[in-house]
Amino acid sequence: MSDVASLRVDGDRFWDTVMRSAAIGPGVAGGLSRLALTDADRDVRRLFGALVDEAGLTLTVDKLGNMFARYEGREDLPPVVAGSHLDTQVAGGRFDGIVGVMGALEAVRTLADAGVRPRRPIVVVNWSNEEGARFPPPMSASAVFAGLQGLEWGLSRVDRDARTFGEELARIGYAGDDKVGFPIDACFELHIEQGPRLDAEGVPVGIVTGGAPTRGLKLEVRGEHAHAGPTPMLKRRNALVAAARVIVALDDIGWRHAPAGKTTSARLDVSPNLSGIISNEAALWCDMRHPEAATVEGMLAEFERAVEAVADASRCDVEVVERWCFGGDIFDDGCVALLREAADRLGHAHLDLLSEAGHDAYNIATVAPTAMVFCPCRDGITHNEAEHCDKATTIPAVDVLLHAVLARADR
Amino acid sequence: MSDVASLRVDGDRFWDTVMRSAAIGPGVAGGLSRLALTDADRDVRRLFGALVDEAGLTLTVDKLGNMFARYEGREDLPPVVAGSHLDTQVAGGRFDGIVGVMGALEAVRTLADAGVRPRRPIVVVNWSNEEGARFPPPMSASAVFAGLQGLEWGLSRVDRDARTFGEELARIGYAGDDKVGFPIDACFELHIEQGPRLDAEGVPVGIVTGGAPTRGLKLEVRGEHAHAGPTPMLKRRNALVAAARVIVALDDIGWRHAPAGKTTSARLDVSPNLSGIISNEAALWCDMRHPEAATVEGMLAEFERAVEAVADASRCDVEVVERWCFGGDIFDDGCVALLREAADRLGHAHLDLLSEAGHDAYNIATVAPTAMVFCPCRDGITHNEAEHCDKATTIPAVDVLLHAVLARADR
Repeated sequence: MSDVASLRVDGDRFWDTVMRSAAIGPGVAGGLSRLALTDADRDVRRLFGALVDEAGLTLTVDKLGNMFARYEGREDLPPVVAGSHLDTQVAGGRFDGIVGVMGALEAVRTLADAGVRPRRPIVVVNWSNEEGARFPPPMSASAVFAGLQGLEWGLSRVDRDARTFGEELARIGYAGDDKVGFPIDACFELHIEQGPRLDAEGVPVGIVTGGAPTRGLKLEVRGEHAHAGPTPMLKRRNALVAAARVIVALDDIGWRHAPAGKTTSARLDVSPNLSGIISNEAALWCDMRHPEAATVEGMLAEFERAVEAVADASRCDVEVVERWCFGGDIFDDGCVALLREAADRLGHAHLDLLSEAGHDAYNIATVAPTAMVFCPCRDGITHNEAEHCDKATTIPAVDVLLHAVLARADR
Repeated sequence: MSDVASLRVDGDRFWDTVMRSAAIGPGVAGGLSRLALTDADRDVRRLFGALVDEAGLTLTVDKLGNMFARYEGREDLPPVVAGSHLDTQVAGGRFDGIVGVMGALEAVRTLADAGVRPRRPIVVVNWSNEEGARFPPPMSASAVFAGLQGLEWGLSRVDRDARTFGEELARIGYAGDDKVGFPIDACFELHIEQGPRLDAEGVPVGIVTGGAPTRGLKLEVRGEHAHAGPTPMLKRRNALVAAARVIVALDDIGWRHAPAGKTTSARLDVSPNLSGIISNEAALWCDMRHPEAATVEGMLAEFERAVEAVADASRCDVEVVERWCFGGDIFDDGCVALLREAADRLGHAHLDLLSEAGHDAYNIATVAPTAMVFCPCRDGITHNEAEHCDKATTIPAVDVLLHAVLARADR
């Protein structure tokens, strides 16, 4: 057995797996378009399975297609889990999530090659449907794993062609037999930052101390059908116009709280959405974020006042039909400390950060001690085919993951 | 042969045909949902065919499914055409278009019953796909009839499930053999007002002197994909937000020019339109209307300045990719005069109006003398299942149609 402190991942081997993934489900502009449970998702799952075999690990798949590659420990204890996801947005990048799965796999291969057998098993995970781009909402499979939702809910998520998650999972051959969810000791997730700070400051390792407080809402707008020609302005109840006024109000709130705050209208569904007719229904998904929880609550209050004013002015009913929040101090101090100590020992500069995106780790943090580590991505560009990571500035975070996971698995 | 001046339509028989149509393709709230080339459209075409047979007229169908019921004249001259359309919006009314087809049929039956044979043939028409709700744009089949578009264009209109007009027309059995378009002497269209004036003023007959000048545009917005979480406001190029700002600017212009002016954003397509990701593309269909052509041009100029300002502020590219205009003095003075004289002779109060909606008559007016007559609809509500017409206030316009058509056919 080699000197454990001197262990380093094989950066070339790791990078090669990221690049092999990058050939599966190419987009149109150099990135990836690998929506959950498509043929491309099936193909990258097969690649992951082959790499797991090559590493001598045992692969299991649960009823939601979550893939677990197990490296046995000295004792049969709940494992330390590390990983992320291999699915992408419709026009996504080659690194988001993928470096987390391949990095965790590389960490375990490094241990296996060195003959290091920690006390606890280590399980490398590929979570299904993290992006939720095809089967909303995001992170649905880890939500079921964490018991936040039931299995039937997970299987019944539906895409725009009314195909269910369960049907499509069976179609690609990844509907496993295993129960979703098992006891775990701790969870670590490596992910690209999806923000500009590490890249701008030239720091390779982000220690994620929590999630940026985020409030999300789904609104439903009810107006009235009418002919676009003769109906006078005063008689109109145009759901599309009301939704547009809400979107503008929300955007204005984001600007008032910039640069730390931000607001997003991401999705708007309008019905019947036809030329010549005033739409009677709209549904809008939106959110607001700020590092300070109290500020987010203030933004939410501003937004709710704005929505009321829009409803009055547009003569439409605007109702909040769903609310969600995430972020805050969700990560485990002990796990965060293991990551920070690993970076210090390895001599890598690091920054404390809040995650501004949702991650499967948020769900797992509700049932087990969890933490995240970030690597830089160029200009913070992500969910975009132009997303880019450099090999040299990605490997340090993989080494940090290796040593934090090992330290936890040896406890 | 009876005294021609004393001829009146059989109001009960007419109303019965409107009510028989109202049973085909019911909506959910008392109206109709009878999109072009659906099974319901097929069924109402069969009803129309049966009524044409009963009246002893000859039915022909052209390659776009336009249906023509011919009542022979004394001479083989280009016919006078009268009619409208039997298709509806997805949540439409029982009268829009339908009273125009059934009214024209009733007028001809009245002539036939009385043994009146005018000099020219009279052809009752049911135009395909007036609404364009399923196969945009509206009035596509009359556009081909008038030579404004080619047959292939008409057949290749496509619905949201990528089915073509041609395929669906064949499926319902109404792809006729006849060439689209033939010489006509004149055209009259009876339609519900689709506005509140006749109803509010208690006047049963609207003499349509032209179309309200209308300018329409299709805009395409190009932004950039980005993750909704980390991307700061300053780096965002959210196509949905830019489109929303355009919609609000257009709505504000409508309010500045109300009550005579109005503006509409009717349809917005956003891509990828998913939670968690900033959309990079949007397409928006919008229009502006005012009785004064110069004012519409001024509204358009205001709008174009607003679009530029939005593009700058939102860091998105906003491009006008299509423009259309309709309305103006499109109707024939002689035909308009025949309608007015008929109303006077019959002793029906009448108003001069501009049509604020598009109609097949607009297309036909480009190739033949054309005019329209309106009947009232309650509160001007239309393109809505609550659309309502009273039998007693509808019949006068049918009598006016009868006498104007007969006068023209005897010239």
